[in-house]
Amino acid sequence: MARIAPLSGFPEWLPDARIVEQHVLDTLRRTFELHGFAGIETRAVEPLEQLLSKGETSKEVYVLRRLQAEDDAPADRSGQLGLHFDLTVPLARYVLENAGRLAFPFKRYQIQKVWRGERPQDGRFREFTQADVDVVGAGDLPYHFEVELPLVMADALGRLAEVGLPPVRILVNNRKVAEGFYRGLGLTDVEEVLRQIDKLDKIGADAVGDLLQEQCGATADQARACLALAAISGADVGVIDAVRELAAVHGSGTDLLETGLAELGALIEAAAVRAPGVVVADLKIARGLDYYTGSVYETVLVGHEGLGSICSGGRYDTLASDGKNTYPGVGLSIGVSRLVSRIVAAGLVRATRSVPTAVLVAVVTEEDRAASDAVAAALRARGIPADVAPKAAKFGKQIQFADRRGIPFVWFPGDRAGSVKDIRSGDQVDADAATWEPPAADLWPRAVPAV
Amino acid sequence: MARIAPLSGFPEWLPDARIVEQHVLDTLRRTFELHGFAGIETRAVEPLEQLLSKGETSKEVYVLRRLQAEDDAPADRSGQLGLHFDLTVPLARYVLENAGRLAFPFKRYQIQKVWRGERPQDGRFREFTQADVDVVGAGDLPYHFEVELPLVMADALGRLAEVGLPPVRILVNNRKVAEGFYRGLGLTDVEEVLRQIDKLDKIGADAVGDLLQEQCGATADQARACLALAAISGADVGVIDAVRELAAVHGSGTDLLETGLAELGALIEAAAVRAPGVVVADLKIARGLDYYTGSVYETVLVGHEGLGSICSGGRYDTLASDGKNTYPGVGLSIGVSRLVSRIVAAGLVRATRSVPTAVLVAVVTEEDRAASDAVAAALRARGIPADVAPKAAKFGKQIQFADRRGIPFVWFPGDRAGSVKDIRSGDQVDADAATWEPPAADLWPRAVPAV
Repeated sequence: MARIAPLSGFPEWLPDARIVEQHVLDTLRRTFELHGFAGIETRAVEPLEQLLSKGETSKEVYVLRRLQAEDDAPADRSGQLGLHFDLTVPLARYVLENAGRLAFPFKRYQIQKVWRGERPQDGRFREFTQADVDVVGAGDLPYHFEVELPLVMADALGRLAEVGLPPVRILVNNRKVAEGFYRGLGLTDVEEVLRQIDKLDKIGADAVGDLLQEQCGATADQARACLALAAISGADVGVIDAVRELAAVHGSGTDLLETGLAELGALIEAAAVRAPGVVVADLKIARGLDYYTGSVYETVLVGHEGLGSICSGGRYDTLASDGKNTYPGVGLSIGVSRLVSRIVAAGLVRATRSVPTAVLVAVVTEEDRAASDAVAAALRARGIPADVAPKAAKFGKQIQFADRRGIPFVWFPGDRAGSVKDIRSGDQVDADAATWEPPAADLWPRAVPAV
Repeated sequence: MARIAPLSGFPEWLPDARIVEQHVLDTLRRTFELHGFAGIETRAVEPLEQLLSKGETSKEVYVLRRLQAEDDAPADRSGQLGLHFDLTVPLARYVLENAGRLAFPFKRYQIQKVWRGERPQDGRFREFTQADVDVVGAGDLPYHFEVELPLVMADALGRLAEVGLPPVRILVNNRKVAEGFYRGLGLTDVEEVLRQIDKLDKIGADAVGDLLQEQCGATADQARACLALAAISGADVGVIDAVRELAAVHGSGTDLLETGLAELGALIEAAAVRAPGVVVADLKIARGLDYYTGSVYETVLVGHEGLGSICSGGRYDTLASDGKNTYPGVGLSIGVSRLVSRIVAAGLVRATRSVPTAVLVAVVTEEDRAASDAVAAALRARGIPADVAPKAAKFGKQIQFADRRGIPFVWFPGDRAGSVKDIRSGDQVDADAATWEPPAADLWPRAVPAV
């Protein structure tokens, strides 16, 4: 164990950054629960054939092998296990496995690590934490859930503003709008068009226009129409009118387009009331390789757009199916590690201290350690996190021990009562461990804006 | 996805059992924090050579391979990654990697999944959650931490009694006592003796006596003395005297034995004050294959002793070392999955409902859904978990929807205020979403004794 270097792509936090991450996770969990989502966890592994059932190209899977089974790896993939690369494939399997024991529509949140064997780069990890909310219906799933789900995420991310998270912008689109429009134009390979449109931010409109002609058989005019659709965005229902006008110009109106526009309009109207300024219709959002059939969502951190989407998702008409029953779903997933890594690295959020301890109880001599233990026990019994000095060193050293960890108070046990010192101000008062309270802001470490 | 069967050894919970597990995890976390332990998480993977550095036999490791790298698996193990099988190996690595940025003694808790490719059986899983507390010193680590750590676990597990966890008994021993006694007898292969003593519960005293003679070169008299030592147990310092007497009979007293007895005595005395009736000295506790050097701990659930230890650990003089510095440590680990699986399966603990929702807001007509959304938003803003009915069905059906999930209250929006019905009692009162409060016991789902 002489040389230890971090593994690229597998982020770990020091205790103070972990306090920030824990605050983010606690806030997300509490918000999801306030909205009625039940928490579940699924195992980290799934059968390889299920992980790959929607194609191999998009995510790189880690396959598991027991060390002792080294030499008898099966020739085919049956029975092999891989680590899940998202929480959607496991949810689909969990729903099918437990369909008879779940109540539908099933609203669940799930906060877990996922793994992808991709090349690590800024904001992309090989192991990272996702926080997902999904609603799954049995047979049908009303459209209003497509309105509700991004608003849950807007609430959750909005609650993090008080610790210094920049505002978020949730970009929404509807696959029916895109598909209806493309089909109205006469383009039939809708998936391929979406895949090219998905590249807009990376390679620009001119290059995408060329690709639409080369890859999707579009004429120059059809390509221009697709790019014009993708250029439409806005936070009010004016965007719906803009799409209709564009469709009228190109004669590309269809029933599917109208259905999509009605849905998108309803989402924008509800969002304007329930999360004003957060949700923006953006007709270029395509979510290229994912199999969405209705609303699609991406989320950017304002001022950190280069980080990419921190919260994405959409509607699947067939999240899962067992042949007899079909389970549609809609959900979004927050990339917690990407978010936390950015707010910590950019110095936006910090923890008020690096340990839970509010009070360090000093030790006068090692023979008197039991007296200090008793003070700490009395404080803990009243919900005050307390620690006892590791050594009966000089008080100056014990205060230094507290200071180094950001512990605000040092308790000096006395013959009857003791005294407690706020080591930031130097104020010291007599105190009884059965009644003394720290200020509420000092009780637990908190995540706070760093500036 | 036609047939879905659970994977043996990879437990998953339905939402109501997950509420029980979450309560256990929250209680452990809060207790560890009250005692001043900082929370960290480490990545799920470690280099294979580090996972195997203490021998391959005890734990079966899952090795990772990227799917796309299928055909170029390295011939040797360098660079290979495996899933961690405990949280101690990762802690040792984390401490070395971050030694310059941590404050010692470093007190950390860690609650994470671990994986072992073992044959699944009752209470043994391939994926399970552990909750660990450890203190790690730089260079030295005073003995009093060996007293403190089991008392932290006694506090944590004791706090679960209110939800129906049976009492626990923490069994403690000290390697110095065993080693000092064996060496005093003239037995030098201490590890091998410990390994045989560790089998007592499984194969009985006669068989272990035979093995001591066959495997460890013990005479019949030496074997009897080892078994007599292992038979000593008790909750007060009488056990110390009993060991001394036995050593006197066999002339097997040593300085090491006396050091061990002084430590064990101090632990029992402190525990009698701080956790009366919980800690018992048991001289047969050996923790066979683990590399402990001082105190060792095991914990049984009273009435469920057959489950085995639910919380084990001990002291390492060399938890980690980088050649220049040595980091001693002491810690314990709770097998959370084993514990939760038992209390759920045995019907000891249950959740008061299967969803977080306290109030289901009914929907009068789909056109009025926004009014119901507004009620739910007002409740959530005041910290009351609320959900909105998925469909504007007959009220009877909406009440049934709540009943099926255990949601206690249904809210009927009205023209001005609304009314709220406790569907358990049938009581219905007019209510304003800006002021109404549910009883505290109904606000969140709780874990409660099932009987």
